[in-house]
Amino acid sequence: MPQPNRPQPDGDQPTLAEPGRVVSPEVEADGTVHFRLFAPNAQSVLLRSPELPKELSAYEAPMARGDDGVWSLTVGPLPPGIYDYGFVLDGLPLADPASASLFGTRRGARGTVEVPAPPDAPRLDAWRDVPHGSVAMHWYRSPAVDSPRRAHVYTPPGYGDEPERAYPVLYLLHGMGDDDACWTQLGRANVILDNLIALGRAEPMVVVMPDGMPLGMPEGEMSEWWPRALETFRTDFFLGLMPLAESRYRVDGSRERRAIAGLSMGGAHSIEFGLTRLDLFAWVGCMSAAAWRAERVVERLAQDPAATNEALSLFWLAIGVDDFLLNTHRDFTAALTQAGIDHELHETEGAHTWSIWRQYLGELVPRLFR
Amino acid sequence: MPQPNRPQPDGDQPTLAEPGRVVSPEVEADGTVHFRLFAPNAQSVLLRSPELPKELSAYEAPMARGDDGVWSLTVGPLPPGIYDYGFVLDGLPLADPASASLFGTRRGARGTVEVPAPPDAPRLDAWRDVPHGSVAMHWYRSPAVDSPRRAHVYTPPGYGDEPERAYPVLYLLHGMGDDDACWTQLGRANVILDNLIALGRAEPMVVVMPDGMPLGMPEGEMSEWWPRALETFRTDFFLGLMPLAESRYRVDGSRERRAIAGLSMGGAHSIEFGLTRLDLFAWVGCMSAAAWRAERVVERLAQDPAATNEALSLFWLAIGVDDFLLNTHRDFTAALTQAGIDHELHETEGAHTWSIWRQYLGELVPRLFR
Repeated sequence: MPQPNRPQPDGDQPTLAEPGRVVSPEVEADGTVHFRLFAPNAQSVLLRSPELPKELSAYEAPMARGDDGVWSLTVGPLPPGIYDYGFVLDGLPLADPASASLFGTRRGARGTVEVPAPPDAPRLDAWRDVPHGSVAMHWYRSPAVDSPRRAHVYTPPGYGDEPERAYPVLYLLHGMGDDDACWTQLGRANVILDNLIALGRAEPMVVVMPDGMPLGMPEGEMSEWWPRALETFRTDFFLGLMPLAESRYRVDGSRERRAIAGLSMGGAHSIEFGLTRLDLFAWVGCMSAAAWRAERVVERLAQDPAATNEALSLFWLAIGVDDFLLNTHRDFTAALTQAGIDHELHETEGAHTWSIWRQYLGELVPRLFR
Repeated sequence: MPQPNRPQPDGDQPTLAEPGRVVSPEVEADGTVHFRLFAPNAQSVLLRSPELPKELSAYEAPMARGDDGVWSLTVGPLPPGIYDYGFVLDGLPLADPASASLFGTRRGARGTVEVPAPPDAPRLDAWRDVPHGSVAMHWYRSPAVDSPRRAHVYTPPGYGDEPERAYPVLYLLHGMGDDDACWTQLGRANVILDNLIALGRAEPMVVVMPDGMPLGMPEGEMSEWWPRALETFRTDFFLGLMPLAESRYRVDGSRERRAIAGLSMGGAHSIEFGLTRLDLFAWVGCMSAAAWRAERVVERLAQDPAATNEALSLFWLAIGVDDFLLNTHRDFTAALTQAGIDHELHETEGAHTWSIWRQYLGELVPRLFR
């Protein structure tokens, strides 16, 4: 097989690294992380991560070029956790080509680096030797769009062993640019559920993770796109996805045993689908919700707040104080309060990142169906 | 949210493209494909694909830089199909950052471009509006290694509707650098099975797709690594994966209804696991098999070729005449012939590519369990 072209060492030049030999990211035992990219001709390389420590950079940090053509940056020691990151090479955003934990989303390839936790303080989003559920991918035809649709569904450990048992169901929605795989790949929902169930802190439940972008990425003006995308997904959700999921899986089918929750755009979906269909959902969760056009929903609920409060077993919201959506979110929760709609609001540390959504999932799930 | 740094237009310079605005790949109706990469400072950018037409390049083709910093290459018209490709930027291999169909493997991010087939000549590996099976991911602890293990399992349409029915099972193995997701993501095994079953050309079956690299990517000498990796996977396969799969899924459990097949390294696994355990497998398939150390297996079978031939319902092999493994493969099949082991050999057009493995899967599956 022909070999890739490689820059050849030149007697008068420092020897260039072989691209295949670059190790990145490298995590030391104390949590120090080395990021590296082979890019001998680049004029600038940045490390981009929404999760870098603030003292380093809120978002991007320049890397330095070595004589061997490898750009590098050392960060940390970082606290144990999973960090979403990429590089920007002369303006071109790209995933770390040397990483072994890459996956695709609607925003291109992405990768993470994991700083392990000490054994005596294990993280809820790290794999443990407990019974494991499984995650199935389903393809279906939707009444909403012509293109094939896919959903991920988590079933808890033991699901196959108790053929008569019905489970509660959580519909768990992703944000803009992601897809139905992200709550598993980036959000580790299956790992968090397995661990919570093993600890006795959560009801065994089915978790349905749809693809919330049946129209794909936004085109044109958001004010035109969002209502169209929302109504397309509403049709898909209620007439395509829910009938599929609830016929294929043993779920109770009662509103008291059905929840909906989502992050960012998925928070908007949870408001729109959950709060307007209290005949179907008794539990609604919003993580860093993008409360777009949510005033329409609040106005509707305000007509009979007592009935809404009676129907909602839990309306749970959380957002980080560094989230760029904080002000919109505060407007939304203020409107809820003014309308007399009961809700539980958590303003926490953190920004608009998968680290906080994994944390929120671990906090929300133990509250459901109990 | 802070915006990525972008090269700023300069009055004396051509305006640079905005990286987010680059469309790649762009597929025209006649199958012409435009590949593009924003890389203003690069000295060379190559399109790399094992599937480019030979007249263009066996493996790599140079792209040309435009004044706007975008490198581009137009290829085709290409025949309908799915093409695996990436770029090489000054020696750095990377997936197309603008592609919406990226995914990670052990060799980093990869992407494909699809040239649609005309409606009157649909491809077997393209989505059709037929009943769909599903694909589940299972995580398990293996007796072979300490790290968590994962497998993908396809169940055919209707699997959940016939709770008493047992199905035949195919173990389907991937090649070096890939993982248990690749037969679905790159190989479209679920799509091919759905279509064959809908056409009445295949038995509905369960397909178990393990991760064949429990030790990860090779380190050190292959002659040392391969036997160690093989025996580790053998332990995982027979003592971890098979018990998991056959307890979780309704499979017959008889050798006549159990098959094993794989591509490249997975062909070697199929030879090693299938031909040495004819008490478990009656059907063995090899696609572009890497027949490493396979002479040991042939020697063993040669002791009683009649018993082997009696036990094997089908021993099916296929390889492309442009495959870099062709000579090794010919040595192997010559040894089979000399030992009196019945087999069916297909030397076809093509090389060591996912296009040919999708084709082979579509040819092999209709032969199984019939």
